[in-house]
Amino acid sequence: MSLTDTSIPAVAFVGRSGSGKTTLLEKLITELVSRGIKVGSVKHHSHVGFEIDYEGKDSWRHRQAGSSFVVVASPDQIAIVKKLDQELAVEEILAKMDAVDLILVEGYRHSSLPTIELFRSGNPKDVGRELGGEGNQIIAVVTDIPVIEQEARAQGIKLFKYENILEIASFIEQSFLSIMA
Amino acid sequence: MSLTDTSIPAVAFVGRSGSGKTTLLEKLITELVSRGIKVGSVKHHSHVGFEIDYEGKDSWRHRQAGSSFVVVASPDQIAIVKKLDQELAVEEILAKMDAVDLILVEGYRHSSLPTIELFRSGNPKDVGRELGGEGNQIIAVVTDIPVIEQEARAQGIKLFKYENILEIASFIEQSFLSIMA
Repeated sequence: MSLTDTSIPAVAFVGRSGSGKTTLLEKLITELVSRGIKVGSVKHHSHVGFEIDYEGKDSWRHRQAGSSFVVVASPDQIAIVKKLDQELAVEEILAKMDAVDLILVEGYRHSSLPTIELFRSGNPKDVGRELGGEGNQIIAVVTDIPVIEQEARAQGIKLFKYENILEIASFIEQSFLSIMA
Repeated sequence: MSLTDTSIPAVAFVGRSGSGKTTLLEKLITELVSRGIKVGSVKHHSHVGFEIDYEGKDSWRHRQAGSSFVVVASPDQIAIVKKLDQELAVEEILAKMDAVDLILVEGYRHSSLPTIELFRSGNPKDVGRELGGEGNQIIAVVTDIPVIEQEARAQGIKLFKYENILEIASFIEQSFLSIMA
């Protein structure tokens, strides 16, 4: 939790709700951790008031009573919940993370982070949506939609299917963690 | 979340499970916040593996997959869950807290913090327990057990009943937040 700026590589996964971001990240984190990489992750909620409950709800009770800043600490982990006067940019959040090799970010359109975009064929919110339309720097696309695949190929953007977990993990490793990078 | 050392006043509430710590803190936080005081709080779990679930459990899935450090951020709050290689001392945790006027700590026996100790008559774990036996610097006692009341009076330690929320809040305010302190 150092406030000094970080050079920890970070990659964002952007896609509409229902595009499978969390499932993909879950599998990628598992794969990357199995390769000995220490991973941190950031999950963005667009809406105010997400609920966090701890076992026994003691910290929830502190928060409800009006604590600005609740910490729950045990021998093996620490959780901090802080009220914000205004939303933090993802870059500000990343600057506080330390002690990991790689940060995977779920969400945050329009950030400065290199971004992998998701488009899933079964997802109503992905119908008619354009590649790169969220203003991020797209380094790869994960999709099962033929028209998006064509567009990625036409633009020379790296293309993966949802089941290509090992390949996506290797792409991230080579892009961000290789000593040759 | 500055790493610079803090001079934010902190007071610990120590007592066995069942002594009513969380209920007392909940009421005190409500009262202190209503007085315009910005409060942060720390809750100690003695055991490893407390569970934190977020709405939708996305961050829980990140953690289960092996993330060392999960952040969940929304426009109005940020939550950080970090795995620890070894337990942090409460003093190390307090040094990371900022932007509050007062920190209430639930738990942490044997800390260097000024401590209010709780003994509740209905609590089996409080039977036969001695005042100050946890090695903390006791500044007040909250109890409904006559023998503990006698002991506190004999030692000249400030004494409150569980229902004395306004008086305990005022004692904390005067002890830690008064410009005369």
